[in-house]
Amino acid sequence: MNSPTINGERLWDSLMRMSSIGATPKGGVCRLALTDLDRQGRELFVHWCEEAGCSVAVDRLGSIFARREGLNPELPPVLLGSHLDSQPTGGKFDGAFGVLAGLEVVRALNDSNLRTEAPIEIVSWTNEEGVRFGPPMLASGAFAGTFELDFVLSRTDADGKTLGAELERIGYAGARPVRGHEVAAYLEAHIEQGPILEKEQKTIGVVTGAQGQRWYEVTVTGMEAHAGPTPMGMRHDALVGAAGMVEVVHRMGLGHPDARATVGKMQVHPGSPNTVPGTVFFTVDLRHPDEEYLTLMDVRLKADCAAAAEDLGLQLQLEQIWHFAATPFHKECIAAVRNATAGNAITHMDLVSGAGHDACYVARVAPTAMIFVPCKDGISHNEIESATPEDLAAGCQVLFDAAVHLAGPVREATEVS
Amino acid sequence: MNSPTINGERLWDSLMRMSSIGATPKGGVCRLALTDLDRQGRELFVHWCEEAGCSVAVDRLGSIFARREGLNPELPPVLLGSHLDSQPTGGKFDGAFGVLAGLEVVRALNDSNLRTEAPIEIVSWTNEEGVRFGPPMLASGAFAGTFELDFVLSRTDADGKTLGAELERIGYAGARPVRGHEVAAYLEAHIEQGPILEKEQKTIGVVTGAQGQRWYEVTVTGMEAHAGPTPMGMRHDALVGAAGMVEVVHRMGLGHPDARATVGKMQVHPGSPNTVPGTVFFTVDLRHPDEEYLTLMDVRLKADCAAAAEDLGLQLQLEQIWHFAATPFHKECIAAVRNATAGNAITHMDLVSGAGHDACYVARVAPTAMIFVPCKDGISHNEIESATPEDLAAGCQVLFDAAVHLAGPVREATEVS
Repeated sequence: MNSPTINGERLWDSLMRMSSIGATPKGGVCRLALTDLDRQGRELFVHWCEEAGCSVAVDRLGSIFARREGLNPELPPVLLGSHLDSQPTGGKFDGAFGVLAGLEVVRALNDSNLRTEAPIEIVSWTNEEGVRFGPPMLASGAFAGTFELDFVLSRTDADGKTLGAELERIGYAGARPVRGHEVAAYLEAHIEQGPILEKEQKTIGVVTGAQGQRWYEVTVTGMEAHAGPTPMGMRHDALVGAAGMVEVVHRMGLGHPDARATVGKMQVHPGSPNTVPGTVFFTVDLRHPDEEYLTLMDVRLKADCAAAAEDLGLQLQLEQIWHFAATPFHKECIAAVRNATAGNAITHMDLVSGAGHDACYVARVAPTAMIFVPCKDGISHNEIESATPEDLAAGCQVLFDAAVHLAGPVREATEVS
Repeated sequence: MNSPTINGERLWDSLMRMSSIGATPKGGVCRLALTDLDRQGRELFVHWCEEAGCSVAVDRLGSIFARREGLNPELPPVLLGSHLDSQPTGGKFDGAFGVLAGLEVVRALNDSNLRTEAPIEIVSWTNEEGVRFGPPMLASGAFAGTFELDFVLSRTDADGKTLGAELERIGYAGARPVRGHEVAAYLEAHIEQGPILEKEQKTIGVVTGAQGQRWYEVTVTGMEAHAGPTPMGMRHDALVGAAGMVEVVHRMGLGHPDARATVGKMQVHPGSPNTVPGTVFFTVDLRHPDEEYLTLMDVRLKADCAAAAEDLGLQLQLEQIWHFAATPFHKECIAAVRNATAGNAITHMDLVSGAGHDACYVARVAPTAMIFVPCKDGISHNEIESATPEDLAAGCQVLFDAAVHLAGPVREATEVS
């Protein structure tokens, strides 16, 4: 038989149809988790899955699992997916691509009348973005045993509504338990959300793991003073201290090619042009794929910020508020992705995921890998997020081939029916 | 006759009584310009002036002039004063000291039954702080011809109320024209609002002039990007650029003992912990008593910020929004103050005013000097602002002696009545 191929046009049409739900005037998508728009997106996805012959199950956190039975139903499924919720000013592809690429794999198998040994399941995880209900990746985190069910159900949005109540309201509080499902492999296709593939002119990023992350909240306290009468030498300027720490963080990022170090949020008090700032609050986000190196960064951050504060007679409060351990993906899954790119003569390179993804949690309980495709200028979480039909089709084809490889060799359905 | 002395206890009592109007729980004062509390403060002041035998006139901007007639009413008056409005979380002494010290000079002259050759007028300028109606020092600026009357009357507060309407409302839209009053000399006593006198253990600052000021608004624009996937070398991090500029400004301040350079306000967008900042807005406040040096600072600021922006591929928009020329005070007035400290054996040193004061505008149209007294830890514009009764009395005594010197030798009132 011919090597089966996915239908890139159908994938693109499905992405465009899905992006019309919550479409924003600037060409993006606003489909926050568990809103009416999220329900519409879920209903469309479920409709498509049923149309493709899948049986659909919803778990207690609203994650949707659409199953295409395997020749051997006793085998654990190969899981393909991502999420359908979006940022408030999000794009058309973040999340939706991984889910609808999974759907396209199933549709292409149907077109070719092929069966896999193991079942294939498409998954759409609830609340990946963490915008309406924090923290992010709640459902996949619970699937991996990181979050307790009650914790997730009791998360509240800005209006005080709980995730559990909103799940009930939109009719997606399912019956299936969240944990305990054995999975043969999990593959997540996603736009890169970074500029590397575009710059290196590669179509596929073979994702070998996810960076470890440490997040910090820092408060630098000096003494407010009048900007006119107070001589420079008598000041305790919290912003001068914080500026030095921004440079400490930046240099730390420059110190290793795989390191990322960012001060993303800063608030300066009291914020008057003629008052020496008395207090500055800022966040630090450190990332590295090697947990050991990330620990070194942690040590250096604390030491260098302390020294910067001491130089200026400032008080420093530096607290780590989050630690997500570096997550190497599964060798066999990575190899399946890499071989699929090679088999299709698609340009590719190894990448580490800098962003968090459902795959980062799932990797804790199942063999996992990810497939990245380029996005224009590396921009995401933005209405102008953009990816080409060709790159998306290439990513989907790689997903198909890797999934079929992992689910066991395909056979014509007629051979076994 | 004995050398007449002011009554330090009476001055203190008046300051405490005035500070009860708008008193805050933390021991400070909130008496914003042209509020009901401001009216109460004005009424108390006018009452005291009338009690002291002064004739009171109010100008069209609500500034209050209380006149103690001189032996020669044709001579232009010696003007003593400051302001009675406060910051939202202000202290008891900023402004009120200069006004009530002027009142105490008049009271002390009355006690001693002395007359001066020239009239003495106490002035309380409207809206010095510029908190409710910006910019600051509106009434003294108009007095000096810097602001047009209509401009000042049309300033609005946050609720859209005009300064003119609020003057009418509290009954202080006076009849006296704002300009055209010849003044022999203007003396303003004030707390230092800085730490130098305290550190140098001097009681009086002989203020030789006011620093020139240049204020800027700066916007640094880079590109927002995801903090995880975006390599350090591909970033255009607006905050890293702004941090370098904070250090540029700080070093500029350290470059000369009389220079002051401050970034007081900064806003970082979009302000998410895991997003590389795309835009940073901040203010720069440069000061120097020498206008030529201030110009050098201006040139260097622009060049160094442009270089910092270019290094990181950032856009820079740097706009000067205010320039207040360095204001040297009047030699004869300065000498009168210095001689008064020497005559009373009070420790003193020359100072340049780093803050803006009504005196800085009045100096444009009349011989002017200022008298500073220490404030605890150099702190003002703060409810914990503090000064000792002894230092305030010393400042008032110097004001008395300098005023009497400038208003012509005193004579017993009986000699001329």
